Amino acid sequence: MFLRIDHVGIACHNLEEKIAFYESTFGLTVVSREVNESQGVREAMLHVADGEQGASYIQLLQPLSPDTPVGRFLAARGEGVHHIGYGVPDVTRALAEIGGKGVRLIDERPRHGSMGASIAFLHPKDVGGVLTELVESPKQVP
Amino acid sequence: MFLRIDHVGIACHNLEEKIAFYESTFGLTVVSREVNESQGVREAMLHVADGEQGASYIQLLQPLSPDTPVGRFLAARGEGVHHIGYGVPDVTRALAEIGGKGVRLIDERPRHGSMGASIAFLHPKDVGGVLTELVESPKQVP
Repeated sequence: MFLRIDHVGIACHNLEEKIAFYESTFGLTVVSREVNESQGVREAMLHVADGEQGASYIQLLQPLSPDTPVGRFLAARGEGVHHIGYGVPDVTRALAEIGGKGVRLIDERPRHGSMGASIAFLHPKDVGGVLTELVESPKQVP
Repeated sequence: MFLRIDHVGIACHNLEEKIAFYESTFGLTVVSREVNESQGVREAMLHVADGEQGASYIQLLQPLSPDTPVGRFLAARGEGVHHIGYGVPDVTRALAEIGGKGVRLIDERPRHGSMGASIAFLHPKDVGGVLTELVESPKQVP
């Protein structure tokens, strides 16, 4: 069902500072910056590796305000890993399969994620405390 | 410097239960089980994907006792993501390079990690709250 670790999402207070840190310390490169109003985040994707089934990234997330999911995460736990995103071939199918096994879904239907992906989140209480995201990358036009 | 996301380490109370969950819900497969006395953990590596620069895994970690790093993590924060491990070509060189940029090192010298790897941890306070591991996989014998 999982094609790859698509990304690890990391919550931070200051996106530009954290990008600069990951670039200068680890040599990662920003490949996308977006503001996702519906998720309440300003974010950047930093490329780590290419794989047979797509690339892997570090996703840095800064909340647009304290009253957002990532804002509340930072207030409660401080900076750190926020979620894991796994690549799947078909997010609608994966949601149905996982939901059918009794895992609660935060998103019953896919929504728009980073870099044109269709994404959906699973409830962390049913995945051992790990906020888990399914990521279907946009089809490559040949 | 980073070849891939080698693994994401997830702390849990009951390793066998969590393995069964990841197998049945997400279709992942255990490729290694180990007890690492020096780190105070019983662990399993579940294969997620192969890449140009090696594979990616989910690492499930159960503490051998409450008085271990993962035991204290569980007591303080509950189950969830414990660390990110990045593949590097040469862990000694990466440690020198990263330490030279002012990041505090938990391990000044590499130690033994999962599946024969040489590993070292960076201090989470200097990596935005993320406990960060460097992983040099054992050389493949041709």
